[in-house]
Amino acid sequence: MHAYNPNIISFSGAVSAFRSGKDTPSDFLERCISVIESRESEVQAFETLNFEGARAAAKAATARYRAGRPLSMVDGCPVGIKDIMDTCDMPTQMGTPAFKGWQPAYDAACVQALRMGGAVILGKTVTTAFACGATNKSRNPHDTQRTPGGSSSGSAASVGAGMLPVALGTQTQGSTLRPASFCGIVGFKPTHGVLTMQGVHPISHTHDHMGILGSTLDDTWRIASHLSLAQGHPGHPFLHRAGERPPRAIKPRRILHLQTPGWLSETTDATRAEFERVLKAMRDAGVEIVSRENHSGAAALEAAIDEDYINSCLNITAYEMQWPYRQYVERHPSLLEQRIHDRMRQAGAMKPADYTVCLANSARMRKKVKSLLRGVDAIATLAASGPAPLGHQHTGSRTFLVYATFLGLPAFSLPLMQVDGLPVGMQLIGAAGKDGTLCAHANWLMQLQGF
Amino acid sequence: MHAYNPNIISFSGAVSAFRSGKDTPSDFLERCISVIESRESEVQAFETLNFEGARAAAKAATARYRAGRPLSMVDGCPVGIKDIMDTCDMPTQMGTPAFKGWQPAYDAACVQALRMGGAVILGKTVTTAFACGATNKSRNPHDTQRTPGGSSSGSAASVGAGMLPVALGTQTQGSTLRPASFCGIVGFKPTHGVLTMQGVHPISHTHDHMGILGSTLDDTWRIASHLSLAQGHPGHPFLHRAGERPPRAIKPRRILHLQTPGWLSETTDATRAEFERVLKAMRDAGVEIVSRENHSGAAALEAAIDEDYINSCLNITAYEMQWPYRQYVERHPSLLEQRIHDRMRQAGAMKPADYTVCLANSARMRKKVKSLLRGVDAIATLAASGPAPLGHQHTGSRTFLVYATFLGLPAFSLPLMQVDGLPVGMQLIGAAGKDGTLCAHANWLMQLQGF
Repeated sequence: MHAYNPNIISFSGAVSAFRSGKDTPSDFLERCISVIESRESEVQAFETLNFEGARAAAKAATARYRAGRPLSMVDGCPVGIKDIMDTCDMPTQMGTPAFKGWQPAYDAACVQALRMGGAVILGKTVTTAFACGATNKSRNPHDTQRTPGGSSSGSAASVGAGMLPVALGTQTQGSTLRPASFCGIVGFKPTHGVLTMQGVHPISHTHDHMGILGSTLDDTWRIASHLSLAQGHPGHPFLHRAGERPPRAIKPRRILHLQTPGWLSETTDATRAEFERVLKAMRDAGVEIVSRENHSGAAALEAAIDEDYINSCLNITAYEMQWPYRQYVERHPSLLEQRIHDRMRQAGAMKPADYTVCLANSARMRKKVKSLLRGVDAIATLAASGPAPLGHQHTGSRTFLVYATFLGLPAFSLPLMQVDGLPVGMQLIGAAGKDGTLCAHANWLMQLQGF
Repeated sequence: MHAYNPNIISFSGAVSAFRSGKDTPSDFLERCISVIESRESEVQAFETLNFEGARAAAKAATARYRAGRPLSMVDGCPVGIKDIMDTCDMPTQMGTPAFKGWQPAYDAACVQALRMGGAVILGKTVTTAFACGATNKSRNPHDTQRTPGGSSSGSAASVGAGMLPVALGTQTQGSTLRPASFCGIVGFKPTHGVLTMQGVHPISHTHDHMGILGSTLDDTWRIASHLSLAQGHPGHPFLHRAGERPPRAIKPRRILHLQTPGWLSETTDATRAEFERVLKAMRDAGVEIVSRENHSGAAALEAAIDEDYINSCLNITAYEMQWPYRQYVERHPSLLEQRIHDRMRQAGAMKPADYTVCLANSARMRKKVKSLLRGVDAIATLAASGPAPLGHQHTGSRTFLVYATFLGLPAFSLPLMQVDGLPVGMQLIGAAGKDGTLCAHANWLMQLQGF
C-alpha cells in the first residue's frame, strides 16, 4: 500500500478492528512503543516520552471501544506533540537551552482538544530551536546520515519511522511539509488561522500555521478535523464542515504546475523526471495541466511571487518575532544562535511604517493570487528540492514551500515520489478556506498513484 | 481641569517638565508611591507591587530625559498591569487560587512593548477571577463602600485614586469601560484585534479586547498607540497611524443616541438627566443628535441587537472558553466558582455547528451595523447604568457595554458626568478600525465639557 515507506502505521486502518474487538488501542500503542524501543536510539525523534501516561490513556480508550462508545474519531490514537506546544504532563523545552526543563501548567488548546477526544499523548517530539533556529538531534529514519528536515524534525521522523501514526508540527516557512517530504509521509498545513495556535510558542502571527504529519491522508485529516473543534482565529471556517473523514476523491479538472526560481537551479534531472511522471499520470487520467508556457495566470503568478515579495514576508516574520524574542536575546544572548540575533537586528532596523507596508504587500498579493487561481483547482509543485540532503547542520531548502505559507494557502505534501531510493513529496496547494476541496483532490491523486 | 475627579494625575501633563528638567520620572514615581502608601490599604488596587523595579526603571528614564533622549512617548510612565497579563518579574495570579503564585518566565507582548518604550511597570492590579469570575478585593476610590467595577477592578481603582496615570485592562463584555465609568477616569477599548493579546490569559478569542484605563485622554491614547507597535491579529490597522498623541479635536456632525433595553429599566431620572445635559451641550454646539424617534438607522440598530443576538454572542464566549477553562474545571473543580462551571455546561451542550451558526450571526450583524452607521460619526450611550452600586458582590451591569464589545467596535468611556456626587461615564462608540477618528471626536467632547 505504501510502496516508498514500508515503515508507516495507520491509525485509521485499525479503527474497525478496535470496534470489532480484534485489536485495541492498548495493543496499537504497544506496537508503537516497540518500534520506538528498537529505533529511537538512532532516530532520536523524541525529547520526552510518557509511556505511563500513554498506557493509561490507551487503556481508557480500549474500554470505550469495548463498550461501543469511543469519544471521537481520534479516540485511542497515539499522537506526538512538537516540543513548542504546551503540555501539562511533560516539559516544553522549545528545542533550546533557554527553556530547559520548562514545565507549563496547562495544555495548549490543540493538546487539550486531542485529549478531550481520547487521543493518546505519547511524547514530545524534537524541534529545531524555537522552530526557527539551530538544528537538533533527530535523524532521517530512511537514512540516518541525512536530515529529517525541520523544524518539525521529530514529528516527521517518528511518523516516518512508524513509531507513531501522526504527530503535530507547525509551519512558518516550510517546517511541516519539508520534513514530511524527506520522511516519506503526508504533511498538511491548513489555511492560515483555521487551527488555533493557543499555547503554541509563536514566531510570527501572520505566518505561523499548525501542521499535521501523518502516515496516511485519513490519519492526517482526522486529526486536523478534530483540532478544528478548538477554534482558530475568530471567524475562520471549520475543517470539519468537510467531514471528519477525508473528503471523497474528486478528480481536479485543471492543475497549475508552478515553476518558481528553484525549479531548475535547485533540482536534479532525476527529481524533475519523477515529478513529471506524476504530472503525466494526471494528464493521462484526463486532468489538464497548465503552466507558464500555456497559461497567462501561471506566468503572472510566478512573476508576482518574486524575491521582493519573499523578502517583504521575511520582514513581517522578523518584525513580529520581536514579541517575545527580543526578551530572549536580551536575557540569554549566549543561549541563542546567530540566526535569531540576526532577525532581531533586521527587525530593529524596521519602523512600524515599514511593517505596515509589508502587511499591505501581503494583503495585495493574497488578493491577486486569489484572482489568478480562478479556474485552477490546485497548484502542484515539489515539496522539497529533492530527497533529504546528507548531514545534520541544515534542514533543507525552503524554496518550494514559502509561497503557500506566506500566502496562507492550504497545502499538502504527498509521499508520491522516490528519487535515489529516498522519498520526495508532491506539494498540492489549494485556495484559502477550501481545505476540504484540496483534500478531495489529494485523495484522488493518492488513489491514482495506488495508495 | 478634572471637576469630577480631583485625584487623578496625568503623565502627559508632566512630560514637558521632564524635558525641561523641572520634574523627573523618578519624582513622578515617588508621588505615585506616596498616594499608594496613603490609600492602598483602603482601595486595595494591587495584587503585587514592585517599587524596587519601578524605581530602577524610573531612574533610567530620568537619565534619558536628562540626556535629551527619551525612548518613546511613554518613557518614564508608571503603568499598572492587570493580573491576567504575564510579567517576568511579578507573579500572574489571574485573580484565582488556581494560579496562586504562578510566575511566568517572560512578559506578555503588551508588557514587553511598554518596557521597550521605557515605561515603568509598577505593579499587578487586582482582577476578578480570570477576568470573568468572582469579584475581588478592590474598592471604589470615590466611596469604598462601592464596587470599583470589574473585571479590571484594580486598574480602574488605582488610576481613579491617583496612584497611577494609566493601567492596562481587558474587556470581553464590559471589563474596561464599566470600571472606568465607576472610577471617574477615561476607558478605551480599541477595535477588536488592533492590540495584541499575546501573553494575556484568554476568555474568548472573538470578544477579548485589550483595554486602557487612563487619567486623561492623552495618557490613554499614548499608551494604546505605543502598544499598537506590538502587532495585533494579522492584517489589522495600527492606532499609531493616527499619531502618538490623541488626534486633534474634531466636531462630529451627527451622533446617534442609542437607547438599548436598559435605557429606561436600569437608569434613574438623575442619570438620564445628566446624560441629556451632555447631549444638549453637543446639540447647542451644532451637532445633530439622532435617535430611534427620528432616524430609521437608529431604530433598525436597536431592533437588531436584541436578546437573541446577545445570547448568540454569549454562546460564542462560552464555547471558546473551553480552551483552556475545561482543563481548570476538571483539575480544580472546587477552586472555580459556579459561574465558570455554568459556562462549561453551556458550552458542553453546544455542537460545533451551533458555534458556527453563532459566528455567522456575529459576522452578519457586524456587516449590518457597518451599513446602519453610515452617515453617523459616533454612537453615544451610557457606559454604565449609573454610578457604582453599593457593595462588593457584583461589579455592575453590562447592559450598555456588550454591544460595542460583541461588535468589535472601538469605544471610550469619558468621565463627563456626575450623579449623586459619583462619576458616570459617557460611552462613545465608533466605526471598526476608525479608532483615531473616534478619539478625535472624544477629544472634541472633552474640550466642549471643559476638560
